[in-house]
Amino acid sequence: MRAVVRRNKQLVCDEIAELEPAAGQVLVRTLACGICGSDLHALHHMEHMIELGRRGGGGDNGFDPSADTVFGHEFCAEILDHGPGSAPSLKKGALKAGTRVVSIPATLTAGGMELLGFSNRLPGGFSERMILSEALILEVPNGLPTDQAALTEPFAVGLHAVAKARMDANSVALVVGCGPVGLAVIAALKAGGHGPVIAADFSPRRRAAAEKLGADIVIDPARESPHDRWEALGVPKARGAQQMIRMMGGSFGRPIVFECVGAPGVVQALIEAAPAGSQIVVAGVCMETDRIEPSIAITKEIELTFVFGYTPEEFAGTLANIAEGRIDVSGLVTGKVGLDGVASAFTALGDPEAHVKILVEPAS
Amino acid sequence: MRAVVRRNKQLVCDEIAELEPAAGQVLVRTLACGICGSDLHALHHMEHMIELGRRGGGGDNGFDPSADTVFGHEFCAEILDHGPGSAPSLKKGALKAGTRVVSIPATLTAGGMELLGFSNRLPGGFSERMILSEALILEVPNGLPTDQAALTEPFAVGLHAVAKARMDANSVALVVGCGPVGLAVIAALKAGGHGPVIAADFSPRRRAAAEKLGADIVIDPARESPHDRWEALGVPKARGAQQMIRMMGGSFGRPIVFECVGAPGVVQALIEAAPAGSQIVVAGVCMETDRIEPSIAITKEIELTFVFGYTPEEFAGTLANIAEGRIDVSGLVTGKVGLDGVASAFTALGDPEAHVKILVEPAS
Repeated sequence: MRAVVRRNKQLVCDEIAELEPAAGQVLVRTLACGICGSDLHALHHMEHMIELGRRGGGGDNGFDPSADTVFGHEFCAEILDHGPGSAPSLKKGALKAGTRVVSIPATLTAGGMELLGFSNRLPGGFSERMILSEALILEVPNGLPTDQAALTEPFAVGLHAVAKARMDANSVALVVGCGPVGLAVIAALKAGGHGPVIAADFSPRRRAAAEKLGADIVIDPARESPHDRWEALGVPKARGAQQMIRMMGGSFGRPIVFECVGAPGVVQALIEAAPAGSQIVVAGVCMETDRIEPSIAITKEIELTFVFGYTPEEFAGTLANIAEGRIDVSGLVTGKVGLDGVASAFTALGDPEAHVKILVEPAS
Repeated sequence: MRAVVRRNKQLVCDEIAELEPAAGQVLVRTLACGICGSDLHALHHMEHMIELGRRGGGGDNGFDPSADTVFGHEFCAEILDHGPGSAPSLKKGALKAGTRVVSIPATLTAGGMELLGFSNRLPGGFSERMILSEALILEVPNGLPTDQAALTEPFAVGLHAVAKARMDANSVALVVGCGPVGLAVIAALKAGGHGPVIAADFSPRRRAAAEKLGADIVIDPARESPHDRWEALGVPKARGAQQMIRMMGGSFGRPIVFECVGAPGVVQALIEAAPAGSQIVVAGVCMETDRIEPSIAITKEIELTFVFGYTPEEFAGTLANIAEGRIDVSGLVTGKVGLDGVASAFTALGDPEAHVKILVEPAS
């Protein structure tokens, strides 16, 4: 079967071995699979990513970044066949061929958990077919279009970030960076009834997407600092002013900042510019060494909450949010390519004005 | 009256102007005042401290680090006189001359709040007398010795750090660094019924103090990594192992690490060595730029909670903890000096084996 293979830090279309589902597994046909910012980074820097992962004590099941890898972890697929001996009594095992499903990008195997998109043994979604686990697949409900179901994975990242944010009823949220991660955070905030939500991005296209997803105030940081809005929204910036309000028996919403850029220097800029007492939820993945001034973070009692991934429950909740209309992801897919077009799509995604999300359709 | 003045980055004994309490203020005689690590740092680097504070948007009431300053913010004092027109009806205003008191190191004045020890207008505790606020002073209860009452301020820092830690019933705490901040954290953890508490320090003297304050496991990091203890205390270190336990319906205590060293590189070392999901409470004040690897913090979902100071309630709670025996601070004062001895005491405190806490007794 055909797939896009990462080989020698390049993407090549090639034939790869056919797949056989084992017991508890399903063979699926990939309908659509989004290209993620982490794929763009991993194309050139996967060795460094894996080294950092190992320094953090993360298990990677012996993944070898120098061997062939098929990316793709944001997919919607269609069941082709079940592995031998799959129990029809298993509710999910009973999903029939032709059923459209999504799944967290992980497959249980006899040798352990394979992370789809970052595995040498199983291909991710930039291939015609994949092996998924019966225990992890979720049927796409409500006739939700395939393009939208494929966005479950990136939007689950936003729900997880918001879950870690400990919002209170009066919290004001600022989302810095409106690429796919920032948009997912905005959508999860609004789906959860939180607000006001301030969103900031230099790109007009991304600002438009933020507005469509429900951001209450959308700011171009080239024209105005988003941090000029806190006071008007009821959050004093200085610790002294905050202490004075508390001494008088008053209260104000907890300031929450979502860092969705992932570039060096952004965290420190936020430590300096955000209100005292801010929780900065770091969802943007900065792969380089970064510098901070701890003494400023201490004086302001900043909290840096680094977040990653999502739970299976958050993944399922995001699918429901999209299928039931609490998150409107229509219009976010700005391009589609076949396997032949993946390499050039990686290049096109370098320009924030060109695209929000490109889907790969291996059958096209 | 006599005081130790910071002038041209040196400490000199000199005469300073006598003090007159205004309405709502009390004139006190300083009985004892501890030397804090921040004093040692400020002697040479106060200009940099103030610059960092201003970058963080902190109000400093126009403090000029190049002008004369009298340090000292960990004090116990005796009331000499009340300001004119102090209402005897004010409960605290009614405290009689001769009453021993402690206070958060701040005095309300017509021009704003003066931070004692970091003010050009009012002296801190390295002087014979001070001006305090009737609204902020607390009577020393239970015949608590003056030396121990003077430790209320540094131990309040520990209670605040623990309050920010969101401990749960099964949490395991690791305190890295057993100088005054680390010891205060250990004491607050044990006073709050938390544990087990692991404490780590290279200094035998500090390890002995940690043990006396109730640390359950005391480790010399030159011989053994404290991070080798997590698993035996029921906290899996790897995210994968943690996820597996949760998937099986199990649970484990939240790992909490208190960074009480305040040197560059310690936070990143903890990000790498601590269990996934750790909350690292940063209580040690690192005044230099520091480097972190955000991608490791993200993969492990680390939380960095920077903490500073304490609330008036935490200060009062700490005084009660000490006075009622929940925190035993006896034996922590390892030296006493008069005003003439302050400069040499600053030098002696550079050696962690030489002292835990030195008190200044201006009358001696």
